[in-house]
Amino acid sequence: MTLKVSIIVGNPKPKSRTLKVAETLVEKLLEPGSYETTVIDLADHTDEIFAWPSEKMAALNAGVASSDLAVFASPTYKATYTGLLKAFLDRYPANGLAGVTAIPVLTGADLTHSMGPTVNLAPLLVELGAIVPGRGFYFVAGQMDHLDQIVQGAADEYASNLRRLAGIASSLQPIDHPRT
Amino acid sequence: MTLKVSIIVGNPKPKSRTLKVAETLVEKLLEPGSYETTVIDLADHTDEIFAWPSEKMAALNAGVASSDLAVFASPTYKATYTGLLKAFLDRYPANGLAGVTAIPVLTGADLTHSMGPTVNLAPLLVELGAIVPGRGFYFVAGQMDHLDQIVQGAADEYASNLRRLAGIASSLQPIDHPRT
Amino acid sequence: MTLKVSIIVGNPKPKSRTLKVAETLVEKLLEPGSYETTVIDLADHTDEIFAWPSEKMAALNAGVASSDLAVFASPTYKATYTGLLKAFLDRYPANGLAGVTAIPVLTGADLTHSMGPTVNLAPLLVELGAIVPGRGFYFVAGQMDHLDQIVQGAADEYASNLRRLAGIASSLQPIDHPRT
Amino acid sequence: MTLKVSIIVGNPKPKSRTLKVAETLVEKLLEPGSYETTVIDLADHTDEIFAWPSEKMAALNAGVASSDLAVFASPTYKATYTGLLKAFLDRYPANGLAGVTAIPVLTGADLTHSMGPTVNLAPLLVELGAIVPGRGFYFVAGQMDHLDQIVQGAADEYASNLRRLAGIASSLQPIDHPRT
Repeated sequence: MTLKVSIIVGNPKPKSRTLKVAETLVEKLLEPGSYETTVIDLADHTDEIFAWPSEKMAALNAGVASSDLAVFASPTYKATYTGLLKAFLDRYPANGLAGVTAIPVLTGADLTHSMGPTVNLAPLLVELGAIVPGRGFYFVAGQMDHLDQIVQGAADEYASNLRRLAGIASSLQPIDHPRT
Repeated sequence: MTLKVSIIVGNPKPKSRTLKVAETLVEKLLEPGSYETTVIDLADHTDEIFAWPSEKMAALNAGVASSDLAVFASPTYKATYTGLLKAFLDRYPANGLAGVTAIPVLTGADLTHSMGPTVNLAPLLVELGAIVPGRGFYFVAGQMDHLDQIVQGAADEYASNLRRLAGIASSLQPIDHPRT
Repeated sequence: MTLKVSIIVGNPKPKSRTLKVAETLVEKLLEPGSYETTVIDLADHTDEIFAWPSEKMAALNAGVASSDLAVFASPTYKATYTGLLKAFLDRYPANGLAGVTAIPVLTGADLTHSMGPTVNLAPLLVELGAIVPGRGFYFVAGQMDHLDQIVQGAADEYASNLRRLAGIASSLQPIDHPRT
Repeated sequence: MTLKVSIIVGNPKPKSRTLKVAETLVEKLLEPGSYETTVIDLADHTDEIFAWPSEKMAALNAGVASSDLAVFASPTYKATYTGLLKAFLDRYPANGLAGVTAIPVLTGADLTHSMGPTVNLAPLLVELGAIVPGRGFYFVAGQMDHLDQIVQGAADEYASNLRRLAGIASSLQPIDHPRT
């Protein structure tokens, strides 16, 4: 089975370093050939992000919602995700990302807003029904020279977490067990 | 393999309804016979919770850290977890719950503090390295008559999430793949 | 001195109930004739909110930053403020609302997201340097029939808080006291 | 009128640097002779913090609740306030700090948890009805050599904020205006 992966970038400027960080994280995490990635650079969609209805936006939203894994990446604006990323997520109904495994990524200028991915972006994704398998990932933009090494560390932690979670899955109540 | 499960209850009063909610959640989630549960009712340990060092507390902390699954349950005090639960978690070093799958549970008087498990308790557990497989669970204490049904709904969602996560685990980079 | 008041509404739909709630709050809080209010309905500016630079948006941002009091009001989307409101705030530089007294208002369908104004919108405004004189105000949209009474209660609390704060201001170190 | 000031320190170790930071902040903020300070070092009260009822604890709680200004200071444990500080605050009923101006202070090892005072401690105090006149104050413990200078900057910002707030208080609806 080919895993369906989405990368959603909330930077109002296209082709940002934030996109590069997210792409690297996916490469470090998943086995080559086991997945297909779709990238949504929201900078390309600012003209329609508040249009309602919008077939184009609806297709983008649906694609992410049907992903196995989605990386939501944004520069840190005011200690949290951008309005652009939030505007994309606002288009979902309640629980619109149910069952999607999601990794929250914020890039920032220094360590000051390190807590942002875990206290702001992760709860937002979880509110939509997404599953965040560990802490959010905060990347200091000035560390691009060490991108591979830093992202490898994060990927190793997510991989370890996912293996631990899979171990628990094997002890779950069977799907068809009688409910009380 | 027998799954190791811990339930940690942060209610200063012992044998609370909060404990009952947590126990029910574990029963609904896991297959009978597949796990062993240890309950830590922190109300029994208020006299040593701030003692340092304490062999007894250290043993409790170590037991939880070596669990596969831990349910952290607390009544809602001031919109969040109790100081008693936090005092127990404060005894861990950084990353002290690494790899433990954790479910945050808060009980409250009404819906006003529904966001507490997701925005307050979940990020705290994640900060310690725990993995929270979905939203936090908030239970309105007045609904004890419908405990089974409500907890079943939450358990079904966690079970579904864990199966989805297990699916991703099968596409991870092999543990021994060459690192860049 | 005439107080300068701004109301900023983050609803993608214009002339919303959220705007009505914010206007009512200002009326209940301030003495008639003592202030002038500017309303920014961000629904009217979705076409330029991501344009950079934009003279029109810059003028709106500057007007709010020079206000004495600003009410930031938004419907609750995904347990927090809208992407539209965030996109407006993202246009500010760091500390761009320094010294502005700000009241965070969220309207929502039920009590589930009551914590949103205090845990999400207030910290965002404070990050920008604004001063929030009390808890955020959450209004359940179904209560429009009791709008006056409910908003009066909130206004009374803010008024009481502001009087308490003024009492402390009289004991501050003089502005020109020697610094260490 | 003499201002009543309380300093509450949530460090399980007594006479901490965190206490020193809080004391310095009060000195920089208020005019000498205009206030009286009571210090509560919670390290001295761990044996009774979970006792219920407790006359001693009740007296401490009441003293803080009747303060004009209270500084709540804690080392950063797990990205937020300590369980000890929370246990003290848990003893209040809902709205137990109504009308108290409160400054949240966290000390930490580095900038990683800078957001803690604003996203964790401030909302907790606000939930209790306290009024936080600006952002929370985060102090990096390694900067004790520059304590005076750094705290002076924070004090200047709070002082400026309080003067701005006092300006708004003069335009409030009169206390006895007719309610709708």
